Amino acid sequence: MSFMLDEIHAQPDVVSKLAGEDREAAAALAAEIEARDIDLILMAARGTSDHAAIYGKYLLEINNGLPVALADCSVFTLYDSRLKLGKALVIGISQSGEATDVAEYLEKSKEMGALTVSVTNEPGSRLTQVADHTLLCHAGKELGVAATKTYTSTLAVLYLLSASLSGDKSRIERLTVCADAMRSTLAIEEQIKGRAERFRYMQDGYVISRGFNYCTALETSLKLAETCYVGMLGYSAADFLHGPIAAVHENEACFLCAPPGRAYGGVKEMAVKLHERGAETIIISSEDDILQLATTPVKMPVCVEEELSPLLYIMPGQLLAYYLALTKGYDPDRPRGLNKVTLTM
Amino acid sequence: MSFMLDEIHAQPDVVSKLAGEDREAAAALAAEIEARDIDLILMAARGTSDHAAIYGKYLLEINNGLPVALADCSVFTLYDSRLKLGKALVIGISQSGEATDVAEYLEKSKEMGALTVSVTNEPGSRLTQVADHTLLCHAGKELGVAATKTYTSTLAVLYLLSASLSGDKSRIERLTVCADAMRSTLAIEEQIKGRAERFRYMQDGYVISRGFNYCTALETSLKLAETCYVGMLGYSAADFLHGPIAAVHENEACFLCAPPGRAYGGVKEMAVKLHERGAETIIISSEDDILQLATTPVKMPVCVEEELSPLLYIMPGQLLAYYLALTKGYDPDRPRGLNKVTLTM
Repeated sequence: MSFMLDEIHAQPDVVSKLAGEDREAAAALAAEIEARDIDLILMAARGTSDHAAIYGKYLLEINNGLPVALADCSVFTLYDSRLKLGKALVIGISQSGEATDVAEYLEKSKEMGALTVSVTNEPGSRLTQVADHTLLCHAGKELGVAATKTYTSTLAVLYLLSASLSGDKSRIERLTVCADAMRSTLAIEEQIKGRAERFRYMQDGYVISRGFNYCTALETSLKLAETCYVGMLGYSAADFLHGPIAAVHENEACFLCAPPGRAYGGVKEMAVKLHERGAETIIISSEDDILQLATTPVKMPVCVEEELSPLLYIMPGQLLAYYLALTKGYDPDRPRGLNKVTLTM
Repeated sequence: MSFMLDEIHAQPDVVSKLAGEDREAAAALAAEIEARDIDLILMAARGTSDHAAIYGKYLLEINNGLPVALADCSVFTLYDSRLKLGKALVIGISQSGEATDVAEYLEKSKEMGALTVSVTNEPGSRLTQVADHTLLCHAGKELGVAATKTYTSTLAVLYLLSASLSGDKSRIERLTVCADAMRSTLAIEEQIKGRAERFRYMQDGYVISRGFNYCTALETSLKLAETCYVGMLGYSAADFLHGPIAAVHENEACFLCAPPGRAYGGVKEMAVKLHERGAETIIISSEDDILQLATTPVKMPVCVEEELSPLLYIMPGQLLAYYLALTKGYDPDRPRGLNKVTLTM
């Protein structure tokens, strides 16, 4: 079996294990956030980790009422600036723990008085040495260059932090329920494997969602770009209306991730509009209501609450990125021109 | 003449006029930001206005040391959450002043104790009624659906705010110098008109820059999507390395915006990598050093300091979006499926 497929399959166990493991580290951090009266969170991350950060932004704003900014590392690394960070928490995310600009962002933030935390899969990595706190992903070594289990475990770590901060213990239990739902979701593998050939000559396309699953749109696009070299664009349905929709042509591939929840209505409206334009709508949902609008429906077998749905809804995208790569004759474990650790300054 | 071309040409005058007009409103806001000891800025915007907000983020962080978050409107409009905003300034940007989700974001933020400001081209619009302060773009009515002069004037308004906050009066004078440089930049029109045919069959591609001009990459992509229906992707050079570069194929169009400044080195490195991959590199720069790496060089006639360069470097993209639309037989003033005012909830 390839590394990537193996790691896609490992995700339910990783998340299930994590729900039991990192509670103490998350609780200690939550206590310090409250003690220091933090009123702002910044998250520094790149690529897949940045998509996890976007999930964290929705989660920490919606459930914890803390405004979250996604950091532009270059403000420190290129422009040598200083920020007012006395009441800020800065979260640096990097699966390898070696992202140089994220490490530098944490270092500089600490100098400016911020509380700092690293989220990483590698104990002892540079990020853990720099930050005041560390939350580990406990995903085991990831060998596929396209990140899968480190992505969902990072989502789970951010969920644990948000749940600890909320003080609602039932929230943590729901992560175990979510891990079971991820296991059930693996049942879609046969369906995706069987349909991969349809996309053999897809050259570009869009992945659209909204709210909590905006991260899913971005991460699905990135997986397809990384392993299949397809120029996909991820969008929030709300932003897509402001211009980009003009470029959609007949028969163009538009993937929509539509779990039930508050963002569902907006994604469904977008499905109607795309259907009218004659686009190919590939709709990933548990809801028959929206699946009826699909050229190619992908029925999700189970539901979880919206705030946890990104852990499930990325799985069809990961599986398609894997099987479509095989269909195109590419090795999903060795995307051309990419390394497992990306260093940027 | 078309509205769009007319409005592209109007930009130097708009920015020059603005440098004289809105100083008092910006100074009054700057004084209140200091009096209230604001330690966080949030910006709510969509589409082109969101790209201006990204410029504002770099500017206010680098020059004023205030952390800036780009707001996800749905946190209020879909998820009914509350945020800790007692020491926050919330800036809502909408050229029409009617963006419903931006207006709602301002209203809710005000309820939660934030200082609010609207940045808009329309006096008396909904945003101005909702916000504590208003900074106007003074761009005159914009009739082209693809925003051009309201974009650069929004950049100029945010620059004025940042300059006022810094207390450095010479910064405001530099905006007048920049308006002159924009006038000189219009000289590239003939060059771009002459090359537009080369891109007649371009179906997709990338626009890459970094730092202050990350907004330029996104906005250039959006203009080409809106008027020419080309599926362009805008990226920061740093993020592009984390995965998306894998999808670049031989002969693919990669636009690079490379003004001199701190981000120049990173964009030049990217130009080398793309050149090695056999991509078509269309490089927009005043620097011969990087232009040598271009398949299609676009030589910018003048320089300004990096923090003002986005006002110049968007102009080649706007002009290409206009002339390429004509070359393809499209009306740049009437993109299919778009309206001047986009309402999202």
